[in-house]
Amino acid sequence: MWKQNRVTKRLNIRYPVIQAGMAGGATPPELVAAVSEAGGLGTLGAGYLSPEGIRGAVREIRSRTSKPFAVNLLVTEAVKPSPKEVRRSQELLDPYREELGLKRQEPANFAESFEEQIQVLMEERVPVFSFTFDIPEERWLKRFREMGTTLIGTATTVREAQLLEKAGVDLVVAQGAEAGGHRGTFAGPSDRAMVGTLALVPQVADQVKVPVIAAGGVMDGRGLAAALALGAEGVQLGTAFLTCEESGAHPVHQEKILSGTEESTVVTRAFSGKPARGIRNRLIQDLSSRERTLPPYPVQNALTRDIRKAAALNRDPELMSLWAGQGLRLSRRGTAEDLIRKVVGEAEEVLRRLTRDTSRYF
Amino acid sequence: MWKQNRVTKRLNIRYPVIQAGMAGGATPPELVAAVSEAGGLGTLGAGYLSPEGIRGAVREIRSRTSKPFAVNLLVTEAVKPSPKEVRRSQELLDPYREELGLKRQEPANFAESFEEQIQVLMEERVPVFSFTFDIPEERWLKRFREMGTTLIGTATTVREAQLLEKAGVDLVVAQGAEAGGHRGTFAGPSDRAMVGTLALVPQVADQVKVPVIAAGGVMDGRGLAAALALGAEGVQLGTAFLTCEESGAHPVHQEKILSGTEESTVVTRAFSGKPARGIRNRLIQDLSSRERTLPPYPVQNALTRDIRKAAALNRDPELMSLWAGQGLRLSRRGTAEDLIRKVVGEAEEVLRRLTRDTSRYF
Repeated sequence: MWKQNRVTKRLNIRYPVIQAGMAGGATPPELVAAVSEAGGLGTLGAGYLSPEGIRGAVREIRSRTSKPFAVNLLVTEAVKPSPKEVRRSQELLDPYREELGLKRQEPANFAESFEEQIQVLMEERVPVFSFTFDIPEERWLKRFREMGTTLIGTATTVREAQLLEKAGVDLVVAQGAEAGGHRGTFAGPSDRAMVGTLALVPQVADQVKVPVIAAGGVMDGRGLAAALALGAEGVQLGTAFLTCEESGAHPVHQEKILSGTEESTVVTRAFSGKPARGIRNRLIQDLSSRERTLPPYPVQNALTRDIRKAAALNRDPELMSLWAGQGLRLSRRGTAEDLIRKVVGEAEEVLRRLTRDTSRYF
Repeated sequence: MWKQNRVTKRLNIRYPVIQAGMAGGATPPELVAAVSEAGGLGTLGAGYLSPEGIRGAVREIRSRTSKPFAVNLLVTEAVKPSPKEVRRSQELLDPYREELGLKRQEPANFAESFEEQIQVLMEERVPVFSFTFDIPEERWLKRFREMGTTLIGTATTVREAQLLEKAGVDLVVAQGAEAGGHRGTFAGPSDRAMVGTLALVPQVADQVKVPVIAAGGVMDGRGLAAALALGAEGVQLGTAFLTCEESGAHPVHQEKILSGTEESTVVTRAFSGKPARGIRNRLIQDLSSRERTLPPYPVQNALTRDIRKAAALNRDPELMSLWAGQGLRLSRRGTAEDLIRKVVGEAEEVLRRLTRDTSRYF
């Protein structure tokens, strides 16, 4: 049992370990509930789910646990891309469709309605709402606050953390450059916001009063202990949960993570139009010289959807989005509960040993 | 007083804190000696020094301290660039020369002779030889080992750490992506070797038996405590020492560090031909679209030398190389001894507090 800190108190959880809300089916209710049951905070990655899909998943989570959990959304505005930029990207993608036996179809919509998604979170009185890509409008945040919902925002720079604090979030995730999946950068150019977790966390912790949760490269108890030493009061793990038994990640994706190294990943806009870290493959490589011409999120994300889906059915890692962080050699199999127990136990052991070694005369 | 670990024992120092051997005048004998006197390991950044310059500096260090210290060299082969690639780069650089009132002159040599530099290290029986950019030939390493010199190599990936271990180094610096100055990458493409310190250190520590020293983004005791938690047995700080009183860094460079943020730096080949992290300025910006055409290190380094020198005399940060890591908000003034005391004291405090908080029932 750990002494409560501001993160565990606010979230009403035992251990300051959050499972990241990864969109795209990786976080089924089984995983979310298992994490929360084990004393962490499970998060439904609901970014790509329909409003009714979110409702169903939230109810399923609640049927499995009475513990707190979070739902993560991607703050997305409705877009109207030019036909030209869509066509240009489609032409780049058509060869893959041909290979997969697909016919090009214009997507009916580019993203789920953020407003409708958020409505469901309110109706279902979700205990924790975490978000990334931007800050939701104040009218929404106000209503969540009135309902007592805990708000977690994602920052990749000090300035973003300050903006989130000003907007009234309860907790800030400081997402370092090691993190897998989408960068949360929303204020300023994304290349300037590639700050390593070890450098980012203390700088953020010094500049905001709100508690900081470290994300990016944390895979085990050494990472948790390090994050706490840097001034974070909790950690968010994404990649580490992808290889858990309850994970919804595709088996091919899991295998790639388990066999990956610190050199396997790259930040790419190829799949979604937004910079995201994933394991290198053919699609990323092929489109790397065209990155600048690709339409922004969520347009590119919608355009590649059919390809990603067909590639997954074919078990073809070369055309799937294999989101992952830089700590791949530290990934392991087991249940979500195993992972949380190990992470917490390892951190305790590391801290005890170091304190003994550094305070011989105290 | 800290319990000795493998790093402090091998180096015969009190605290596992190494001052990085930054080339270019930033590490005068005053700084090196002050760090070693304070219980850390000072390092002369001798990469750009002539053999006799190294000899003089080493003797000056020895006149100031009887404690161990290191000399760092940049493992560099003699090069013969094509006249065309030199001319192309010179043409890009000429407008800056015009601005500074300089006339283009072809450099007499591109780099000091590594072989002659290394000879001096042997003749002077330097206690610790640290190096980066590659692994020196076995015949050299063998002679250093026979003389009892401690060898420290620099790795940016697990594979590089393994190669260094195989070559028989005593200690490996794991240089994370946050680190300021030149990337030490020598095996494989440099873009794949941009691994955040928090992710890199535990992966390296798991894969080599030799003790690991963490570098990249470490600026204070939180960083030291985090590095130890991650499995390192020491830390190497560069940027943090640049703003010390004994530092040889240009005052303009120091001011830029003290006013910089986590977003200020970028990895560039503009100044030296080798990827290095520094504070963004006009020269980096201007040449960013030509990065691929620039000649490799040490050619580009030699070609920009006159510009960097004149810009420094003019106190013009826009044309100087302002090497710095990503932890700039954590930089502070003081003596080298102040810095080491603070870093060590902060780490002790952090570890004591965390152990208390995470082991209420132990």
